[in-house]
Amino acid sequence: MAIRRFSEKKLTGEVLKRIRGTKNPRLKQVMASFIRHMHAFVRDVKPTQEEWFEGIKFLTETGRLERQEFVLMSDTLGVSMLVDALNYKANAGSTESTVLGPFHRQKAPRYALGANISKNRGDGIPCRITGTIRNLKGRPIAGAELDVWEAGADGFYDMQKGKAMNLRGIFKADAKGHFHFRCVRPEFYPVPHDGPVGKMLRATGRHPMRPPHLHFWITAKGYKPLITHLFVKGGRYLDSDAVFGVKPELIIDFKKGKDGAATAHYDFVLMKAK
Amino acid sequence: MAIRRFSEKKLTGEVLKRIRGTKNPRLKQVMASFIRHMHAFVRDVKPTQEEWFEGIKFLTETGRLERQEFVLMSDTLGVSMLVDALNYKANAGSTESTVLGPFHRQKAPRYALGANISKNRGDGIPCRITGTIRNLKGRPIAGAELDVWEAGADGFYDMQKGKAMNLRGIFKADAKGHFHFRCVRPEFYPVPHDGPVGKMLRATGRHPMRPPHLHFWITAKGYKPLITHLFVKGGRYLDSDAVFGVKPELIIDFKKGKDGAATAHYDFVLMKAK
Repeated sequence: MAIRRFSEKKLTGEVLKRIRGTKNPRLKQVMASFIRHMHAFVRDVKPTQEEWFEGIKFLTETGRLERQEFVLMSDTLGVSMLVDALNYKANAGSTESTVLGPFHRQKAPRYALGANISKNRGDGIPCRITGTIRNLKGRPIAGAELDVWEAGADGFYDMQKGKAMNLRGIFKADAKGHFHFRCVRPEFYPVPHDGPVGKMLRATGRHPMRPPHLHFWITAKGYKPLITHLFVKGGRYLDSDAVFGVKPELIIDFKKGKDGAATAHYDFVLMKAK
Repeated sequence: MAIRRFSEKKLTGEVLKRIRGTKNPRLKQVMASFIRHMHAFVRDVKPTQEEWFEGIKFLTETGRLERQEFVLMSDTLGVSMLVDALNYKANAGSTESTVLGPFHRQKAPRYALGANISKNRGDGIPCRITGTIRNLKGRPIAGAELDVWEAGADGFYDMQKGKAMNLRGIFKADAKGHFHFRCVRPEFYPVPHDGPVGKMLRATGRHPMRPPHLHFWITAKGYKPLITHLFVKGGRYLDSDAVFGVKPELIIDFKKGKDGAATAHYDFVLMKAK
């Protein structure tokens, strides 16, 4: 038995050879590409053993946090928006998508149209959102579901403060595709920056801020789910969102109503599922 | 203020622009390379949102395990041996290096020459190792320290079974650079495969086995530390080590002595520290 010696050049080929038995062809493709790009990165930067171990420690710390720190890492390195761009090409007037982020929760409360998703009255500036959900032909999608979530005026999502659901809810559009609900006017806030992501942002001279926005996940039978934001026109950090999530088409006016509340309107357009 | 829209092509440039303020030049270089290679990987495989989230979950699970699963991931994807190859070029007869792996422990017991690192008598086949530690000129390095560790006959390292130290120890070479100690003859064993690494190995049609070996970390003042293995000639899996750690120069004869014990001899050669 001849035992081969793998030079730094031949090692990548040997690792690729080892995974030739992968049964799932898609997994084989993804793993082969990952091995190639990972090895290319290592060959490019030539880490010392100490640097390599710093990297291992950093990944381990990222995985150990209770919250979804790897999602945040993906978001802050532009990877999530890249995945979004590769998958969701808005066309013929359908609404642009953006990142899911780490703050969506399953089973948010279901509300009747008009309800307020903020349970703490007097928290932040009251806000009314109205709009429609339509298809590419402009026809209303009756019964489309709109899952909305936002940070509070203090910059925190409910789950950053406890288990109780707040500032999130699911609404069903009426027969004409209309929806309306109340919330608090979104304010800018920092992504969680007391962990590895925060360390990375500080070390690379970046701020952790996201511009003011409402987050949406809109679904309807026969249509492609839409994950998107509405951003407040004139809000801070629109040009330097820590997660690269801003698209100009999603920036809208939040006007001041007669009663001092903010009001905004948006017509979402879904595309057909394939 | 004009808000730009980032196409999938322009997004990478924008992320790189954001880290321009990185103060540490080495970190800047590493992060820029990582961002480029990571984005290239994502553009190459075009993950769906579901696949992207599978990846996030996989990384998170890898970080959550108590043991150092990311080291094992790096080892089984050939990354650790690549880092080794880039950093440690054996030359002029110095001993080849190989991966550290996840089983080295700080503060192993210090033993007098001749001691047995196995605390459970009757465990496995007894083994005697002798050798020298020399420099490139062939001169003994008196007082060089040899930290040795191995799996037991059952295929487990001490730390996989509890907190007690066993099958590891630190020896000091004598004035002539000689060392000798007793242990159990190494057997092949699987790397831990009940976690994400095991999942990856199974899905890619790979076995988790490592060929029989002793693990060494040899240090001496003024010399480059040497992390290496001695492999048992004729042992199983020498040609398909799950962590790509075998180098032909490190495979040696473990002969059977008169008393039934295995014996092996090796002369380690260290290179000067820079």
